[in-house]
Amino acid sequence: MKPGTKILSPYLLFLGDIDDPSDAKLASGVVYWRPQMCAGQFRLPGCRADLGIAELSLADAKAMGVRSFVIGTATRGGTIPDAWRTTIIRALETGFDLVSGLHERLSRDPELHDVAARSGVRLIELRDAPRDYPVATGARRSGRRLLTVGTDCAVGKMFTALAIERELQQRGMAATFRATGQIGILISGGGVPLDAVISDFNAGAIETLSPPAPDDHWDIIEGQASVLNPSYGGVTLSLVHGSQPDAMVLCHEAGRLHLDGLPDYPMQSLKVYAEAHEQAARLTNPKARVIAVSLNTRQLAETDARLACELAEAELGVPCTDPVRYGVEPIADILQRW
Amino acid sequence: MKPGTKILSPYLLFLGDIDDPSDAKLASGVVYWRPQMCAGQFRLPGCRADLGIAELSLADAKAMGVRSFVIGTATRGGTIPDAWRTTIIRALETGFDLVSGLHERLSRDPELHDVAARSGVRLIELRDAPRDYPVATGARRSGRRLLTVGTDCAVGKMFTALAIERELQQRGMAATFRATGQIGILISGGGVPLDAVISDFNAGAIETLSPPAPDDHWDIIEGQASVLNPSYGGVTLSLVHGSQPDAMVLCHEAGRLHLDGLPDYPMQSLKVYAEAHEQAARLTNPKARVIAVSLNTRQLAETDARLACELAEAELGVPCTDPVRYGVEPIADILQRW
Repeated sequence: MKPGTKILSPYLLFLGDIDDPSDAKLASGVVYWRPQMCAGQFRLPGCRADLGIAELSLADAKAMGVRSFVIGTATRGGTIPDAWRTTIIRALETGFDLVSGLHERLSRDPELHDVAARSGVRLIELRDAPRDYPVATGARRSGRRLLTVGTDCAVGKMFTALAIERELQQRGMAATFRATGQIGILISGGGVPLDAVISDFNAGAIETLSPPAPDDHWDIIEGQASVLNPSYGGVTLSLVHGSQPDAMVLCHEAGRLHLDGLPDYPMQSLKVYAEAHEQAARLTNPKARVIAVSLNTRQLAETDARLACELAEAELGVPCTDPVRYGVEPIADILQRW
Repeated sequence: MKPGTKILSPYLLFLGDIDDPSDAKLASGVVYWRPQMCAGQFRLPGCRADLGIAELSLADAKAMGVRSFVIGTATRGGTIPDAWRTTIIRALETGFDLVSGLHERLSRDPELHDVAARSGVRLIELRDAPRDYPVATGARRSGRRLLTVGTDCAVGKMFTALAIERELQQRGMAATFRATGQIGILISGGGVPLDAVISDFNAGAIETLSPPAPDDHWDIIEGQASVLNPSYGGVTLSLVHGSQPDAMVLCHEAGRLHLDGLPDYPMQSLKVYAEAHEQAARLTNPKARVIAVSLNTRQLAETDARLACELAEAELGVPCTDPVRYGVEPIADILQRW
């Protein structure tokens, strides 16, 4: 998707005929965080996933004002199964933009391309690599920024950021979630698909994502990976530099013993990750600091979860919460007093 | 270019009709480092650049065994000027691979694509973004690695790496220059165009570039930018992680007061850059250390240049040399004793 693309809601979430409900992660993320954006779901016979929302035909969806037909699933090999094709083409003809997080490039599919052009709708690819981001300048921007950082991939950085945005907005504060991954982009209708950007423009893309803002406005930027991850550390560093965060929340999954998929990289103490991200961030914002820990305690029993949070607070001297179990009030309190 | 692409020499270096000799940086880099790879130059009427090598017609070049016709210049907007087109097409028809460092995608030019296919030759684009690099694993590899790192862009990292490779080879040691930029790739016939890689695969591309090797073999890896550069720091971090260097040489241009193009980023002490790169590198190689400083003293008079090297040695406690003025023997001595 091009920089600045806005995905129009409401969405009709298409699940195809997938077997494994966990392949609908994209769709279920949107339903969880933005139920009001999701008019309904469309499933083919045999589909075993169910988002628990209204089942809509294309005509129903059109009548309800749906704007985008969203392929809300992963597929084997990232391509569009043949059995889905007729439905997708009918959706384009019905007048919906097609939004896809699949690896396959819709725009290189001559039939989809032609039908979309004829129907006056867009093919929006969440994974498309835009080439027109600027190189970062590192210039300071007005407004306040919080970035979720972490010890590893898949520890809760998007969830934490969305929970903070929601809590701040409920308190009447000005806050905007800024997405850097496919699910976050779909949830917020725009963003930077960081894993698809040419590396020279990574930090610049993030500067674009989080532009100058009023002094009391908080951008809550979705983090990715960790600067101490040997696969993706550079991506994270670009994100940290481009974000120039005032505040960072360190996200971690309790009980993780080594980096995901990398048994030779044992988990280090939280302090190591906090310091590494603070040091990285201070290049573009000398006041950057970790203000809280967001601990994903899904592997722990309730008493252990409380204890784990207390231990993290003792180690880093900042509040620790599990956003799922305990919410993010302690974090919002800090931002409200900023 | 695809991972593993080998550019075949000898080269015929095409300069077109450029006005500004400095636009021939790509070509002059190859002539400087690999004169034996350069059969000659081909210039159009009005060209003001001159590499000082034999002027060859396409037929002459063919007779001398030339394999690649290299567009060795930058152009306005990165596209192929119309006036060059006839010559380029004749070169393809003569049977040369076309090698280009221009931004314009040759393979999207239907005429060039067709002529190349018909002539059985390749269109090799130094800036093309390959999509098939793996994600990095951070697994330790056999062999030894030196990475040139730096305080900023354009301080001499490629030059230093090539000078070290040459010095080691002259001493009979096993050493291979590994290119990460367009000029280096042309000089060595292959490599990773790091500025064109999707960021998620940056570190993985470097792992591929510098594969496991015999214990006494040195890969001399061309560095890029600096981890403390707000525009490109993430690219550098991926390169550092993927290289897992045993040794790093810190490159700097004496007299530079702030980062290139970024007046808000004043140059810090050499120690800051040395420590930042050592800390970054130790994630994938706990023994990584800066073993020397390579000081570009082109802005200094001879006595000042000596003094600047002595000051750098005093600050970091490692040898400092200017590869252009004084060669890289002190660095090679360290590697020979390794």
